[in-house]
Amino acid sequence: MSYKAQVHVSLKKSVLDPQGKTVLHALGTLGFKEARDIRVGKYFEVALEAADEKKAEESLRKICERVLINPVIEEYSFTLTKSA
Amino acid sequence: MSYKAQVHVSLKKSVLDPQGKTVLHALGTLGFKEARDIRVGKYFEVALEAADEKKAEESLRKICERVLINPVIEEYSFTLTKSA
Repeated sequence: MSYKAQVHVSLKKSVLDPQGKTVLHALGTLGFKEARDIRVGKYFEVALEAADEKKAEESLRKICERVLINPVIEEYSFTLTKSA
Repeated sequence: MSYKAQVHVSLKKSVLDPQGKTVLHALGTLGFKEARDIRVGKYFEVALEAADEKKAEESLRKICERVLINPVIEEYSFTLTKSA
């Protein structure tokens, strides 16, 4: 079965986000005064093959925790859907 | 009023994603044979201040199109919610 996952990775709330601060400062300089805060993360679209949804979720968790994210400073969430 | 937005940026389907290909290859090398395709994008959490939802959406679109994304090769979507 084919599955598609959308994975969001963001820095834990307690971790400073200098990239976000830089973007926020740039927005201020460019006149976008509405922005109050920005945090920058990563977004992955993963297509994977698995016997069933449980196996797919298991594989995806392993992929996230061992490769895509750094569990010390980042957290992640995902949505998994069956694709045609 | 305070609003929170989650912005997803990904490369247009027609644009090659060498970063994604590299991650996919790394996964193969590490034994995660289930992964078939990966595309890498960006994810922003934006907090902004605006008079109403329409204004917030307008500001956010400008911020996305002029700063956060490159409209030539990237596309974006967002969800906007009122925050307390």
